[in-house]
Amino acid sequence: MRPGLILKLSSPDHPGIVAKIASYVASHSGNLIEFSQFSDQLQKKFFARLEIDTSNLNVDIEDFKSGFGTLGRSLQATWHFRVLPYKMKTAVLVTKTDHCLNEILWRTGLNELPIEITSIIGNRGNCRQIAEQAGLPFHEIDMDGDKREAGFQQIRSLLVKQNVELIVLARFMQILPDAFCQEFSGRIINIHHSFLPAFIGANPYKQAHVRGVKLIGATCHYVTADLDAGPIIEQEVDRVSHFHSPSDLSRLGRHCERIALAKGIRYHVHDRTIIDGHRAIVFPD
Amino acid sequence: MRPGLILKLSSPDHPGIVAKIASYVASHSGNLIEFSQFSDQLQKKFFARLEIDTSNLNVDIEDFKSGFGTLGRSLQATWHFRVLPYKMKTAVLVTKTDHCLNEILWRTGLNELPIEITSIIGNRGNCRQIAEQAGLPFHEIDMDGDKREAGFQQIRSLLVKQNVELIVLARFMQILPDAFCQEFSGRIINIHHSFLPAFIGANPYKQAHVRGVKLIGATCHYVTADLDAGPIIEQEVDRVSHFHSPSDLSRLGRHCERIALAKGIRYHVHDRTIIDGHRAIVFPD
Amino acid sequence: MRPGLILKLSSPDHPGIVAKIASYVASHSGNLIEFSQFSDQLQKKFFARLEIDTSNLNVDIEDFKSGFGTLGRSLQATWHFRVLPYKMKTAVLVTKTDHCLNEILWRTGLNELPIEITSIIGNRGNCRQIAEQAGLPFHEIDMDGDKREAGFQQIRSLLVKQNVELIVLARFMQILPDAFCQEFSGRIINIHHSFLPAFIGANPYKQAHVRGVKLIGATCHYVTADLDAGPIIEQEVDRVSHFHSPSDLSRLGRHCERIALAKGIRYHVHDRTIIDGHRAIVFPD
Amino acid sequence: MRPGLILKLSSPDHPGIVAKIASYVASHSGNLIEFSQFSDQLQKKFFARLEIDTSNLNVDIEDFKSGFGTLGRSLQATWHFRVLPYKMKTAVLVTKTDHCLNEILWRTGLNELPIEITSIIGNRGNCRQIAEQAGLPFHEIDMDGDKREAGFQQIRSLLVKQNVELIVLARFMQILPDAFCQEFSGRIINIHHSFLPAFIGANPYKQAHVRGVKLIGATCHYVTADLDAGPIIEQEVDRVSHFHSPSDLSRLGRHCERIALAKGIRYHVHDRTIIDGHRAIVFPD
Repeated sequence: MRPGLILKLSSPDHPGIVAKIASYVASHSGNLIEFSQFSDQLQKKFFARLEIDTSNLNVDIEDFKSGFGTLGRSLQATWHFRVLPYKMKTAVLVTKTDHCLNEILWRTGLNELPIEITSIIGNRGNCRQIAEQAGLPFHEIDMDGDKREAGFQQIRSLLVKQNVELIVLARFMQILPDAFCQEFSGRIINIHHSFLPAFIGANPYKQAHVRGVKLIGATCHYVTADLDAGPIIEQEVDRVSHFHSPSDLSRLGRHCERIALAKGIRYHVHDRTIIDGHRAIVFPD
Repeated sequence: MRPGLILKLSSPDHPGIVAKIASYVASHSGNLIEFSQFSDQLQKKFFARLEIDTSNLNVDIEDFKSGFGTLGRSLQATWHFRVLPYKMKTAVLVTKTDHCLNEILWRTGLNELPIEITSIIGNRGNCRQIAEQAGLPFHEIDMDGDKREAGFQQIRSLLVKQNVELIVLARFMQILPDAFCQEFSGRIINIHHSFLPAFIGANPYKQAHVRGVKLIGATCHYVTADLDAGPIIEQEVDRVSHFHSPSDLSRLGRHCERIALAKGIRYHVHDRTIIDGHRAIVFPD
Repeated sequence: MRPGLILKLSSPDHPGIVAKIASYVASHSGNLIEFSQFSDQLQKKFFARLEIDTSNLNVDIEDFKSGFGTLGRSLQATWHFRVLPYKMKTAVLVTKTDHCLNEILWRTGLNELPIEITSIIGNRGNCRQIAEQAGLPFHEIDMDGDKREAGFQQIRSLLVKQNVELIVLARFMQILPDAFCQEFSGRIINIHHSFLPAFIGANPYKQAHVRGVKLIGATCHYVTADLDAGPIIEQEVDRVSHFHSPSDLSRLGRHCERIALAKGIRYHVHDRTIIDGHRAIVFPD
Repeated sequence: MRPGLILKLSSPDHPGIVAKIASYVASHSGNLIEFSQFSDQLQKKFFARLEIDTSNLNVDIEDFKSGFGTLGRSLQATWHFRVLPYKMKTAVLVTKTDHCLNEILWRTGLNELPIEITSIIGNRGNCRQIAEQAGLPFHEIDMDGDKREAGFQQIRSLLVKQNVELIVLARFMQILPDAFCQEFSGRIINIHHSFLPAFIGANPYKQAHVRGVKLIGATCHYVTADLDAGPIIEQEVDRVSHFHSPSDLSRLGRHCERIALAKGIRYHVHDRTIIDGHRAIVFPD
């Protein structure tokens, strides 16, 4: 990852907004590597992501960031800076299946995902071995029956203690408490094993088989208190037929899941997503 | 299309069923060009489609068909023969948009769809010119408000009089009466402008935009009295982003619609589909 | 199409270039609807496309365009303005098959392609009827054997007389003379019926069948004197199998062809392409 | 994997061939689970794959196999039986990159690939750790410069000693000697990192970048002495743009590679492929 700065911004749409932002960057000798913008004509909103090479910056990077406040406020914007290179502290929550976890570990090893995995948390022990082989701490937290509330308290404590910035539900088969969703709002990514909004809820592959669909899918989305309805980051599909049993669909779907999840995490950790109500604006790479 | 015979069959699954059917064909010097079968292990059902070259048949083709009855009954099968070449008498129902109608006309002209279009029926006049340029009769039938019931009576009469075997709803924006669905059961194909079962009902592209999906789709299905829930024949998807307005989704979706519909009709008229409850078994080419 | 202005620009990459361009626009009260840029880090080049709402412009649009010259020259840029709405004068060249022509006519009718078709030119008469039904002049120009050179002279005269800005080879089965390619450089779009650079030359579907590929494709590209090697604008693929004969591949390939060609034309006429040597930079919508 | 028998067969096409084969199976109380056939009308050849449930077989399975000889010979067929369940002894050859190896290990662990990995052989040591963590023997064989011939002799000895049935080149960056290709003909599977026949040879991603293609791909094929020209089993593509540097293409291509290779191996080990000259007939699941 190149050294530099990423700026994410959303605001009401105004004429001249690109000029103002780009001029601020140029006036401090920042060099725009990438400038993605979206003017939502229906909502009159402006969204942008800038990647700035800061090697010739004529001020301190912290001064550059704080100096932007005057402009940002005048635009009534919400914005966020990220200094590069960085690695996002990430916790991965799992239950039994390990394909999504494996994919995350593999891509992290290849530097496709700039994350630092602080812990792998399972409400079952199935993924312990994989975690340990990767040299990562594994926390088994029993959440069955009346241990659920205490379990989430324990997870919460761990996440707070480790300053976790991203929580990935990598086929974690527990519904998160509302308070948990709110506390970590915009920082929890889930992979749902269907092409949402089709097949909300349990056993989507079985539902898909009964319905006889010709394509199955997976959806990577931010988690909100509204189950399976959070902003969608990425979706993948694969072609299937009557020939495929529910377990075939599950096998084929695994690949949709790991690809959609890996892309979704990648977009998030590279600050390529902006949550806009029920939607996610995504500037893909 | 090659001269010959297509046999479609479904039955309880038995050992020896392929041998019996293939032996019947061989004993009369039919030559199997294509043999597709599916043994549903969950339901213990057998489905097959055979394409038979009959040029060396040692009996009359009608005798071949009726002679199959003994075997078919012993297998407790449901079966259907189609003598090739043939063209299926087809009515196309439309409202305003013409892209699906155009696609059908174009593919029919290229001999991709062995159909004979007996009439084009619209509850608006928008498609009249296209129909007439193609040299096809156009029937405008007003179905607004309290004319709906009479309108469907008129359509029904026309279909019966013309011995129509297939009714294609090519973006026909009227809900069919239950009795109509039942009378023509298995012979009505619709194109729904979403990836079913997502976005059932009206304005799926608007729903898709609000939900911020990353893929849109179209679904070709048999029509049943249960709206948007009939057996799915084919589905197509296309990638979209926040960048696309509802009207962009509608533009991109048009191409999914025409492709899914054209494939769905093709599978049906080549007897490549077998309806099995809520599902369609499809042997694609 | 919205009224306004499109600016396409390429230049050496400099810090501050986005700020300068956006400030020029803002200083004249233009509103950026869309700003796509690409900084090629390998070649140190900058490419951009801007779509500007000019409804509040504080100068005359011609003054705005000419006033940009000072900035453009200081950036050592090459640039191009397009005043919206506009329709690009387009000639379509065909031989026998009509599916690409049909697609262009259909999409033009739906306002997906802002073009004005000035003439349809065929070295066979097969597409005459389609042209005439669409109310468009059809020119049949014999190019067989030693009539080839005179034929291209005739085409050239027609194109020049009609001020044609875009020449679409919609399955035109003649190799263009080098001088013709050069004269209309950057203004000729072809559809090649393979996934280039695989299967260059004649009969790509037959080649694909012999080779037993599992995917076939089509490539829309700018035409240069170097046959089948011009800058690629768009490519499409479809899955095939041993089951498909060369004529099946041809049937399936038709749909890749019309989709790739229609997208390629769309990108060109919306000024979403910038030719960069052997490549085309494409900012898709 | 279900207990049973797979029969793969190719022969000249005759009327009655399906009846004869299916009758043979039925006469011994075998139950056809799956029957895939392909009658190549151009070459007048017949190809079939049968999956037979043998739980009620009325003869010994070896007698069933040998008894088929009379019929097989009368059909002038080439055929092959596989008794299920089985695991194919497989050697994986690697050089530096590990993504294809990882994918094979992961899918083997999930029982998607019924193989037994007898050894992992590398001409570099990069994949040693992965092999050892998976509890598999790793053989590092130096093949640089004049050690190449001796290296291939060493590999050959190992493969013969271990009765290896399948050799997977999982991004093995050495060209196999002709004699080696011949000795293990039909048992060597390679993954090529381009959409063959485009970009044969070295550095396909760099070639793809220079050419500005809009889709990149990967091809899984049988290895023959004719480099990159062996029968294709599976191909995958992914969409790319000018935005992607050669290293981005390489990153995106990795996923095409692992998916195409895993599918290709799966088809091979489930006896879903029949090599027919330069092509592979594939009956996918």
